[in-house]
Amino acid sequence: MILVKQSVLRLFQYRDFLIRSKKLGKESIFSDDFAENLGTTSIQVRKDFSIFGLSGNKRAGYKVDELLKQLNDVLKKDEKQKVIIVGAGNIGKALMKYDGFREGGLEIVALFDNDSKAQNEKAKPPVLALEQLYGFINENKIELGVIAVPYHSAQQVLDIMILAGIKGVMNFAPIALKAPKNFYINDMNLKIELESIAYFVKSLKKKRT
Amino acid sequence: MILVKQSVLRLFQYRDFLIRSKKLGKESIFSDDFAENLGTTSIQVRKDFSIFGLSGNKRAGYKVDELLKQLNDVLKKDEKQKVIIVGAGNIGKALMKYDGFREGGLEIVALFDNDSKAQNEKAKPPVLALEQLYGFINENKIELGVIAVPYHSAQQVLDIMILAGIKGVMNFAPIALKAPKNFYINDMNLKIELESIAYFVKSLKKKRT
Repeated sequence: MILVKQSVLRLFQYRDFLIRSKKLGKESIFSDDFAENLGTTSIQVRKDFSIFGLSGNKRAGYKVDELLKQLNDVLKKDEKQKVIIVGAGNIGKALMKYDGFREGGLEIVALFDNDSKAQNEKAKPPVLALEQLYGFINENKIELGVIAVPYHSAQQVLDIMILAGIKGVMNFAPIALKAPKNFYINDMNLKIELESIAYFVKSLKKKRT
Repeated sequence: MILVKQSVLRLFQYRDFLIRSKKLGKESIFSDDFAENLGTTSIQVRKDFSIFGLSGNKRAGYKVDELLKQLNDVLKKDEKQKVIIVGAGNIGKALMKYDGFREGGLEIVALFDNDSKAQNEKAKPPVLALEQLYGFINENKIELGVIAVPYHSAQQVLDIMILAGIKGVMNFAPIALKAPKNFYINDMNLKIELESIAYFVKSLKKKRT
């Protein structure tokens, strides 16, 4: 499962690289090109592709258009997907404006916040009250969410989301959330990621002196 | 190396949990408490602690104040560390306002952007021109940076940062950057993380129908 998850993450990266290469007018790409761009090996690239039944020609490489079509198919990129963001603070608002999601076929349809000053029903997307969270998810059959609230309310927010029908979340709250099996949580603990780089940088310095 | 990296990440999470527990008035904590809060096992917790020579009492648990002191020591949390952010777009600005970094002993001392409209030397922290990046890092002996620029300028920005003395970065650009060995890069590809959750959620649905 972990292995497949990493392969899926890389497939999305291969796809981004293909789209950029296509824009530059390239017609075929070799596994070495993918490997170099992603900082992995060509063996890994071919392995990832073979897991999902994607094939190329060792001499001629992969045809950009053909592989892109296959990848879109495997990654189900033709279907748009609706996303909600809970928490309209700095992180929530930045994600709302983040072009990457739209480019990735993800449409942010609403934000939610318990601060009435942050709420705005007429904004696009609207910023709604937390009380509306359950009903909104349920009525609009939303399956994907982002948690960008403080750690002390994150579990409660997640519980409501799960009850209402959400199937996977990206979590920015610095806490390990509890969820049923088969529920997908990707933790994005920005503070701890940066703290750990800081730690390794400090360790590096100690070793040198 | 990978194993130690994961342990260090968890040590920072243990530390956050300790700080929160201390605020709630707790005086001792068991490895089970850590395990439950982080979604790991108590065996893993004790293993992580033993790697770094942190010890507790099986019956009485870990004393909060004592363990916090030891963790601060191991994680070098007494030293404040300066950070710069390159790219003052949505992500860069959100990170600037993000309290987590300050709480983690990280001080954001400047942002950099090539858009003159985004620049403001008098802001706190100042938003400077990209031309000032090399000199600022060099003069202020900055070792830690965040890359929040579009993918097409990320490698160029990183090269300047490395030349000027940066030792580790958190990278939000959706591209695998090239850097010397011993240089720390943590990739935070928000788009691909969310796309991969979307993929798994879709796969789940397919299986059910």
